[in-house]
Amino acid sequence: MTVNSRSVIIDADVDRSAEARAVAAAIAIPAHVVQSKGHGHGGTAMAMAPLSHVLFSRVMRHSPSNPHWVARDRFVLSAGHASLLLYVQLFLTGYGLTLDDIAASRTLGSRTPGHPEHGHTVGVEMSTGPLGQGVASAVGMAIAARKEAATFTPGSALLDHTVWAVAGDGCLQEGVSAEASSVAGTLGLENLVLIWDDNGVTIDGPTTDAFAEDVRARYRAYGWRVLEISDATDLDGIERMLRLAATRTGRPTLVAVSTTIGAPSTVFGGQPAAHSGGFGAEEIAAVKVSLGFEAHATLAQLVSPEALAFCRRAVQRGLDLEAGWGEGFAAWAGSHPEAAQSWLAFHSGTDQQAATAALDAVEVPAPGTLVATRKTNGKVIQALTPALALWGGSADLSGSTNVTVPGTAVSATNPGGDFIHFGIREHAMAAILNGIALAGPWRPFGSTYLVFSDYLRPAMRLAALMRLPVLYVFTHDSVAVGEDGPTHQPVEQIASLRTVPRLAVIRPADAAETVAAWRRLVARPDGPAALVLSRQDVPVLGLRDGLDAGVAAGGYVAWQSGTGLDLALIATGSEVSVAIAAAEQLSADDLAVRVVSMPCVEWFADASPAYRDKVLPPNLHARVAVEAGRGDGWWRWVGLHGEVVGIDDFGESGSGAEIMTLTGVTVEHVVAAARRTLDIRL
Amino acid sequence: MTVNSRSVIIDADVDRSAEARAVAAAIAIPAHVVQSKGHGHGGTAMAMAPLSHVLFSRVMRHSPSNPHWVARDRFVLSAGHASLLLYVQLFLTGYGLTLDDIAASRTLGSRTPGHPEHGHTVGVEMSTGPLGQGVASAVGMAIAARKEAATFTPGSALLDHTVWAVAGDGCLQEGVSAEASSVAGTLGLENLVLIWDDNGVTIDGPTTDAFAEDVRARYRAYGWRVLEISDATDLDGIERMLRLAATRTGRPTLVAVSTTIGAPSTVFGGQPAAHSGGFGAEEIAAVKVSLGFEAHATLAQLVSPEALAFCRRAVQRGLDLEAGWGEGFAAWAGSHPEAAQSWLAFHSGTDQQAATAALDAVEVPAPGTLVATRKTNGKVIQALTPALALWGGSADLSGSTNVTVPGTAVSATNPGGDFIHFGIREHAMAAILNGIALAGPWRPFGSTYLVFSDYLRPAMRLAALMRLPVLYVFTHDSVAVGEDGPTHQPVEQIASLRTVPRLAVIRPADAAETVAAWRRLVARPDGPAALVLSRQDVPVLGLRDGLDAGVAAGGYVAWQSGTGLDLALIATGSEVSVAIAAAEQLSADDLAVRVVSMPCVEWFADASPAYRDKVLPPNLHARVAVEAGRGDGWWRWVGLHGEVVGIDDFGESGSGAEIMTLTGVTVEHVVAAARRTLDIRL
Repeated sequence: MTVNSRSVIIDADVDRSAEARAVAAAIAIPAHVVQSKGHGHGGTAMAMAPLSHVLFSRVMRHSPSNPHWVARDRFVLSAGHASLLLYVQLFLTGYGLTLDDIAASRTLGSRTPGHPEHGHTVGVEMSTGPLGQGVASAVGMAIAARKEAATFTPGSALLDHTVWAVAGDGCLQEGVSAEASSVAGTLGLENLVLIWDDNGVTIDGPTTDAFAEDVRARYRAYGWRVLEISDATDLDGIERMLRLAATRTGRPTLVAVSTTIGAPSTVFGGQPAAHSGGFGAEEIAAVKVSLGFEAHATLAQLVSPEALAFCRRAVQRGLDLEAGWGEGFAAWAGSHPEAAQSWLAFHSGTDQQAATAALDAVEVPAPGTLVATRKTNGKVIQALTPALALWGGSADLSGSTNVTVPGTAVSATNPGGDFIHFGIREHAMAAILNGIALAGPWRPFGSTYLVFSDYLRPAMRLAALMRLPVLYVFTHDSVAVGEDGPTHQPVEQIASLRTVPRLAVIRPADAAETVAAWRRLVARPDGPAALVLSRQDVPVLGLRDGLDAGVAAGGYVAWQSGTGLDLALIATGSEVSVAIAAAEQLSADDLAVRVVSMPCVEWFADASPAYRDKVLPPNLHARVAVEAGRGDGWWRWVGLHGEVVGIDDFGESGSGAEIMTLTGVTVEHVVAAARRTLDIRL
Repeated sequence: MTVNSRSVIIDADVDRSAEARAVAAAIAIPAHVVQSKGHGHGGTAMAMAPLSHVLFSRVMRHSPSNPHWVARDRFVLSAGHASLLLYVQLFLTGYGLTLDDIAASRTLGSRTPGHPEHGHTVGVEMSTGPLGQGVASAVGMAIAARKEAATFTPGSALLDHTVWAVAGDGCLQEGVSAEASSVAGTLGLENLVLIWDDNGVTIDGPTTDAFAEDVRARYRAYGWRVLEISDATDLDGIERMLRLAATRTGRPTLVAVSTTIGAPSTVFGGQPAAHSGGFGAEEIAAVKVSLGFEAHATLAQLVSPEALAFCRRAVQRGLDLEAGWGEGFAAWAGSHPEAAQSWLAFHSGTDQQAATAALDAVEVPAPGTLVATRKTNGKVIQALTPALALWGGSADLSGSTNVTVPGTAVSATNPGGDFIHFGIREHAMAAILNGIALAGPWRPFGSTYLVFSDYLRPAMRLAALMRLPVLYVFTHDSVAVGEDGPTHQPVEQIASLRTVPRLAVIRPADAAETVAAWRRLVARPDGPAALVLSRQDVPVLGLRDGLDAGVAAGGYVAWQSGTGLDLALIATGSEVSVAIAAAEQLSADDLAVRVVSMPCVEWFADASPAYRDKVLPPNLHARVAVEAGRGDGWWRWVGLHGEVVGIDDFGESGSGAEIMTLTGVTVEHVVAAARRTLDIRL
């Protein structure tokens, strides 16, 4: 076989009877497991078992004993509730899952949680469950595959692989999949195959109740090719169609598979009730018999040695594929030594030295200079792009969010472009970024206004859950946005984003903190981060010793007067300069005042208690936090006798300065709040 | 004219020259205003001015001097940044806006904020700006119009009216509009006309960069009719097509209007730069001249008395329409007295007596009984539906979220149905609820799992901004969801929702608090509320005096031991019983312990300081908050020396009880935390 063949040639002398038993097992196992537990989702795992068998055993290029093989096809189960569909194939084809693992599904500590979890179960390319997300992230994976190939191996098919996603009706009803599918069509992602389990029912009833549209016509309108599998049990027919789907035609492909959820159960088949829960002992016995098993076959009895052996051939086939690919790679590397070196460097991770040098080269203007943090951030992105695998785009606000980089846009004919036009599709942008981060060692970024972070949340949550190093550039970070009014003025977004576990929310006070925050982001790509940046100019603050360490610790003393400590003002972003101005006024009264800049509360909360207590001594009760947004989270740092100068209600349309004054984020209010806290005697 | 004619017959002797001048003014005003300010969005307001003129002056059924006329057509500017498009028509056709208002647009306190704000500017049916929302809420308005007509005036066209929405490319790229458009097609909303400003550019460049799909084919796939306006300046052609669009065909209608953004500017026309900002004095002068004005015409000079008089005829036309409608209504009411009475009662607001009686009839089981709050909530909804204008549905989880009501589903042929199948489209559900709430005195509700509240957020924010009485039923409210694992277990959602201004987040401890919370919701429909409900059974707590008042105040003393007060445990939902169990243990040591149940932090924060201090005395430092979720917001109530027993990270797949233990939400942890806080001596 040649390196660039995209599918596997099956031996002519296949043991069709062993294969039939393997498929029967793949159908029966979920039925058995869900019944024995009394909960879980069996119906889709049953109906789609023949297709998933064909995919994993006949069509997909993968290597079960090396699940991280770089040139493998990707499989995303967007319909994550049908996790057994995937687990059964990971068991049968030799990824290391056992029948005991399958039996233990949905129990604490098992390798088979209720929904597939990336990083937890080998072979799971992405955590799925929230519907639509897998479809949209598969689009990201397909974009990344084409980018990587175009960047490092142009003209070669070495890195060309197919991204397969399985979606249910729910996935295709969700807007995020619609947004991403339109992107996929625009970008001509010919390496993407979306398999739609067209079963005609959802939990609440027939799809005609809520989904009367012509899905096939919709996907054609997006510019997709649409294929049909009318018999979801005809293995050869399925194979023919999946192979056709993997051919490159300049368009992504939707494969509509007509299935009967819960088949071959004659009682539950095609019924909404087949979606979850057991079918009852009697009906499961009937299902087993109809599949050629004993009525009361145990889990082990469902998997004959011949059937297992048949499926496990995938291991050797994978090794053969790898070997063939390796030969092809060696030949190519021999004739393209620099490109090969460059690609290997890409996969070996960030060149810290180059990244640090790039950051050092970003000019931080002199103290007192007025510059929006979004502008400095834009310079950082431009500087880092050549040094880091930093890559991304914007939801149609690249100019305002300052994320433009030199170069060309990704398009159908230019897959190796330098930035992505996501369109006005914030949610798909975030989900696509997840797919790009999952596909390889990219540091993908996307940008929009902070207020629209609301649109991204479900995908951001998955990035956090998977600890993906995705970067969100959220500019226009407060009511200082001004004239566009309350629909465009964030108020609750910063506090709200801070509630997301594993997400770092970073709001730098000035240009210097912006660069310092990137130093930590470059050094530790351990999860997603939201950069919350000002639209308006803010002053570069005075020189601060140990700035990089202070920012990396999440918070530090940015300004201090007097000896001892009477009062601490805590602030972020554009309000740090407000706090310093207030501190200067208060210091005139012989008070010892400290301003703590806390660009990342999460990092500060994770710092050592000793460091935190040094910055904010526990016995200090006079504390005021200042941030142009909801104060919900700040009480942790100011206590019952402190105050929060924030914004509790929505803003208004007017100039940014007027709205800041109207909402009370002013030096005067901070001074007054500080005096009140100083007056409290415990 | 007859009552059920849907369009206005224009006099034959129209002054076409005055009309042409009115249209020229409508184009020139936004160009002039944006240039004079240096910011704002003029290009779309210019390009779509002829169409909006035809709509407001020739086609739409409205009554400028009575903007709340119940039978009016609705107009939603989904492309909210083009607010001048709407403001100019509200001025020209006599809604009371003045040219000074227009000149003051985007300034503090003006009636013409940057984006249209419902409740702020008369004639603005909905606050818009976040793209896609207007399209989706227009779907809700159209659903509500059909529901009201089918419910109160079956067989009559009295309440039949058309919902017009204007959308740009951005609106149609957003997933929420895609979701809602599929719903509209499924429900055959023939009273909905979506006008698409097909101008081929967005801020970042030509739509081919990110939006290469065939939008018309996509809408046909949803089951819509698609009409074309190829010349956006041909008033008669526009009128013909809009009249056709308003005819009832069993399908919603998309009108694709080919426009040139910024036309008639020859420099900016069709360019991305026409989207926002001024065109420069010279170009504006050229635009004015090309429209027949002096090069340096002032704002006042753009509006000739004849042009204004022409447009203001809309006032008398509206009064005539109202009068005609009134005659029709009187005739119908005469022959349908009971139906008329019922409809008038609907519009006169909630019958508090009936609603209270319905709530009284909901059985609260005896203390100690185990029942999930979602179940009690379901009983409340069933009880209230006949008494209140309560109406809604689910995003395909009606059974799990317990919102089923007897009756039929809304469909294309059954517009008066009792519940709505939103499909697996949480975002559109929320936006549609906004439209229903805006359409009339409904109390619409929608339901899904709490973790998926992330999908709804942009629409929830608009509900809060507009103070719409929308109810969200969010069940499965903690990691106790169990086996479905972290993608389905909310952790940050409660804390995150609490950051949204004007949104009440209510997490009742038991059946009794669930009913009590509804009492306040029924009595004060002053904004959106999220009901956060348990999947698992929770015990009905002991009898509590003043429960209704305590819940209405957001928090109250639910349990107390000893005399004096050593310690307060604060909890919500399923954790109140955990806190009580901990309090019982602690009380064995002769401590005076209080458990504060705080089902709605927002209500408690809004209670009088005296009440709050009574429940939580300021000098009490030993405080522990317990909630199965992120603790970010609880520090406000426990202070620097208190503790929060919450969940900071994502959960795992396993039984609900196991995950609660694993994440530390246990009686033991609460007791230990309480002892630590008691040990602190200040």
